[in-house]
Amino acid sequence: MLVRTRSQSLSAQLAARLAERINSGLLAAGSRLPSVRLCAQQQDVSPSTVVAAYDQLLAQGLVEAHKNRGFFVRNRALALVDKGQVATKNVDLMPPGTSSVGSVFAAQHVPVNATALIRGMFQRGSDKPQPGLGAFPPDWLETGFLPAAIRRVSSGAQLRALSLQYGEPAGDSGLRQALSARLAALAIPATAQQIITTVGATHALDIVSRTLLRTGDCVMVEEPGWAIEFARLDALGMRILPVPRGPDGPDLAVMARYCELHSPKLFVSVSVLHNPTGFCLSPGSAHRLLQLASAHNFVIVEDDTYSHLAPEHATRLSALDGLQRTIYVSGFSKILAPGWRIGFLAAPTHLYEQLLDTKLLATLTTPALLEKALAWCIEQGQLRRHAQQVRTRLAQARGRSVTLALAAGCRFVAPPTGLFGWVDTGVDTDALAQRMLDLGYLLAPGSLFHANRAPGTLMRINFCTTQDATFWQVFQEMRASL
Amino acid sequence: MLVRTRSQSLSAQLAARLAERINSGLLAAGSRLPSVRLCAQQQDVSPSTVVAAYDQLLAQGLVEAHKNRGFFVRNRALALVDKGQVATKNVDLMPPGTSSVGSVFAAQHVPVNATALIRGMFQRGSDKPQPGLGAFPPDWLETGFLPAAIRRVSSGAQLRALSLQYGEPAGDSGLRQALSARLAALAIPATAQQIITTVGATHALDIVSRTLLRTGDCVMVEEPGWAIEFARLDALGMRILPVPRGPDGPDLAVMARYCELHSPKLFVSVSVLHNPTGFCLSPGSAHRLLQLASAHNFVIVEDDTYSHLAPEHATRLSALDGLQRTIYVSGFSKILAPGWRIGFLAAPTHLYEQLLDTKLLATLTTPALLEKALAWCIEQGQLRRHAQQVRTRLAQARGRSVTLALAAGCRFVAPPTGLFGWVDTGVDTDALAQRMLDLGYLLAPGSLFHANRAPGTLMRINFCTTQDATFWQVFQEMRASL
Repeated sequence: MLVRTRSQSLSAQLAARLAERINSGLLAAGSRLPSVRLCAQQQDVSPSTVVAAYDQLLAQGLVEAHKNRGFFVRNRALALVDKGQVATKNVDLMPPGTSSVGSVFAAQHVPVNATALIRGMFQRGSDKPQPGLGAFPPDWLETGFLPAAIRRVSSGAQLRALSLQYGEPAGDSGLRQALSARLAALAIPATAQQIITTVGATHALDIVSRTLLRTGDCVMVEEPGWAIEFARLDALGMRILPVPRGPDGPDLAVMARYCELHSPKLFVSVSVLHNPTGFCLSPGSAHRLLQLASAHNFVIVEDDTYSHLAPEHATRLSALDGLQRTIYVSGFSKILAPGWRIGFLAAPTHLYEQLLDTKLLATLTTPALLEKALAWCIEQGQLRRHAQQVRTRLAQARGRSVTLALAAGCRFVAPPTGLFGWVDTGVDTDALAQRMLDLGYLLAPGSLFHANRAPGTLMRINFCTTQDATFWQVFQEMRASL
Repeated sequence: MLVRTRSQSLSAQLAARLAERINSGLLAAGSRLPSVRLCAQQQDVSPSTVVAAYDQLLAQGLVEAHKNRGFFVRNRALALVDKGQVATKNVDLMPPGTSSVGSVFAAQHVPVNATALIRGMFQRGSDKPQPGLGAFPPDWLETGFLPAAIRRVSSGAQLRALSLQYGEPAGDSGLRQALSARLAALAIPATAQQIITTVGATHALDIVSRTLLRTGDCVMVEEPGWAIEFARLDALGMRILPVPRGPDGPDLAVMARYCELHSPKLFVSVSVLHNPTGFCLSPGSAHRLLQLASAHNFVIVEDDTYSHLAPEHATRLSALDGLQRTIYVSGFSKILAPGWRIGFLAAPTHLYEQLLDTKLLATLTTPALLEKALAWCIEQGQLRRHAQQVRTRLAQARGRSVTLALAAGCRFVAPPTGLFGWVDTGVDTDALAQRMLDLGYLLAPGSLFHANRAPGTLMRINFCTTQDATFWQVFQEMRASL
C-alpha cells in the first residue's frame, strides 16, 4: 500500500513502482496500464494522484498515451516471450483445447514477462514464503554432510588438482561413475562414458537442443510445461509443437498427427512427477510412445529433474528404451544444492561426441571441485538418506497445504503429489499474480506453463511455501477483488 | 614407438592406435590413411604389419578401401569442423591472403578435427609438457591463498547461504562489485548492475552470440583467431567473415567492405594479447574501429581473456567506448583457477536484460560458492600480486623458449609476448601435429586458428610448456621427416 511520506509524494511513489515493473519487464511492452479510475481504486489513492503518476511515466518515456485508449508501455528491449507468441502462430496444428481457457481474456490480455517473473523466483526478494517457487526453500535442504563434502575436496592436494586445470571435458570421472551406479538403480543402463556433467539440468537440456536441432526445426514439448523450456526453444528459433500432457502421459494421437505434418526431430518430456501437474508416465504409455518415436524417427529427451522425489521403480522412458533414442537429463538442484549447479545427461553412444562438442563450445568444462564433492555425497549414501527424509517431510507439508488450498476455494486439477500442486483458482491468475506481487508474494500463474502464454485460471503452488494461513487469507482477498 | 609384447602383436597395437584416433575424431571422416609403405616407415614396422593393421580396421568398419587409392576413414558423426568449411564457402568476400598459405596443401588436405584436438588440450593425457596447451600448466598457478579462499566460503552459515539456493541470476553481487572495481582500474566504467558472471569467458562469448545474432547473421571475427570461437559461431549457423588481424589491430579496410556487402551485426575481437599472435590494439586503430562500428551500427565483443598478463594501461575498446556498443568479456581461467570456471561480461545497459535472459535459459544461475571465493581473492589484492609474479616468471620462460625455438629453426611471425608464440615452422603443421601426437606431444597447428581451417606452416606455442630441449629435438626430427 502507498503511504504518504515527507520525502516522496504518493504519485511519485506510484510512478516509481510502475517504472520498476516496466524496467524489469514484468509489465511488458505494449501492455496497457489500468484505467485511471481502476488504478485509483486498486491503489486506494485519488484519481488525480494516478494522473500525476502516469504523467511522470510519460515524461520518463516509459509509457505512451494513445488517444481515447489510455496509456501503454513503450517498446523496450525485445522480450523473449513476445517472440514466443509469434513463433507459435506459425504452427499449423494447435492441439484441441489449448486456448479454450484463455479465450475469455485473450482480447485485452498481455502476459507478464516470463523470464522476468522467473528471474524473480531466483532472486532473494521478499522475506515472505514464495508460493510460486520452483524449488525447495533453503531450510529444507540443510544437511550435516555438505560441509564435510566440501572439506574433503579442499585439502591442499585435492584442491590443487581440482582447481588448477580445466578438468575433464565430460566432467569429473568419479562423479560420472557414481551417476552410472545411480542410473543402474533406476534400471537405466549408462556407462560413465555415456554421461556428461552440466551446469544444472537446464544446461543439459540446452546442450541437447543445440546439438540436435537447427533453426526452424519442429520440436514437441509437453503442455503444460516449464516456461524456461518454451522460452529457450523459442530463443533458438525452433517451432514448438505443444503436446497435451494427461495423467498417463502425452497425448499420443496429437503426437502422431504432428509427426505426419511436421516431422519433428525431438520430444521433450518430464515423465516422472511432471512439472506442473505431478503426473507420472504409465508403462503402457511409455511403450507406445517409444514405438511412435521409432516409427517416426524422433529423439526423446527425458527430463527427470524431480527424480529424487519419486520412487526408483517409477516408469522412465530411458529404462525401457535402454538409451537407444532417449537422452536422460537430471540434476541435483531440487534435492541437494541448487547453488552448486550440477546436472548431467546420459546419451546414446552415437550422439555422445556431438553432445560433448556442444558442451565444449558453450562452457568448455564444468567445475570439478563441486562435482567431486557431489560424488562423495552420492557414494557415501548421504544423498539417498537425505532424499528419503525430504520425501517424508514433503508428504506432511503437502497434506497441510492441500487442506489450506481447498479451504481457500482452490480445486486440484491433478492429484496432489511431489513438490507442486496444480490448482484452479477460478480467476485469471496473470492478473492475480500482478496483485499479489504488490503484496510481496510471487505466484506461478498458469500462463507460465503454456507455449503461447495462454492465460487462465490455473496456477502452480509449491507445497513447502504454502503452509502459511496468512498467505491463503491474502490470496482469498485478492481473488475476491478481481 | 610400437614394441612387440607377449599380449598384443605389433599389427594389433597399430590398429588400436589408429582406431582410437578415428573414434576420437582426430582422424576425420574422409581422410586417407598413409600409404602402406609410408606408414611402415613412420612406425618403423614391416609393410606386412601395416597391411594386417589396415585389414583389422577394415573388419571393424572404421575405414574403407578405395581401389587403387588406398584406405579412407569412414563417415561417422557429423564433425563440427566439416560444417565450418561449408558455411564459410557462402561468404562472398574472402579477405586477401587468407588461403594463400594453405593452397599448396589444399588438394589432399583433410584437417584434424578441431574440437577433438581441443578436447585433447583439456584432457590430462601424456605426462609430457604440452606445447599446444592454451593455458598455464597447473604448477604455474599454485598459490597459498586459494585454500584460504575456499575455507572462507565453507564455514557453516556461508556454505548454506551459497549452496542451498540458486544464487542471483546475474551472479554473486560481491563478485560483481569486485569486478566493477577491477574494471575501473582498466578505465572501463561498469557498475555491478552491468556485469553478469558466467561459466568462464567461453560461456560469456556464447551468451553474447546467442543474444545478438540469429541464424544466418554475419559476424566478423579476427583471423587468425581461436578455433572455439569459429566452431561455436558456425554451430549456431552464423556466417563468419574473417578479418585479418595485424600488429595494430584488425584490417579496417576489409571490415568496411564487409559492412557494405553483408551488414554484419557483431565483431569479435581480442584487442589485448591477441590469441595466437600476442598483438595489442593501438589507440589509433581502436578509435577508428569504434568510428566504423558507429557508422555501420555493429556491436563489438571485446574478449580480454588474457587481461591479467597485460598492463592495465593497454588500449581496450571498452575503455574508449565506455561500454556504449562494446561488450567486455574476461575470466579467471588463465590466471587463477581454470577449474572454477568463472568468467564474466560487462555490457551496455540497454543490452543487459536480454543477455541476462540468455544466461537464464542456458544455465539458470552459476555457482555462487566459487564466485564468492574469487571475490575474496580479488578484494584482498591476492590475485593482483599473484598475477604480477606470474608475469615476471613468464617473461623469463619466454626468453628461454624463444631461444630454443629459434635454434630449432622456427621463425617468429609476431614479436614474442604474453603466453603464446606464433611461429613459422616451414612445414605443414597439421601433418606435424599428427606425427607429434604419436610421440605424446599435442601441438596447436595454425589451421586451428583459421575460420576455414586452412592448413599452413604456422603453429602456436605455449612459452611455459616449451622449456624442454628434448621437445625441440623431437620437433626437429619430425619436421625433417615431413
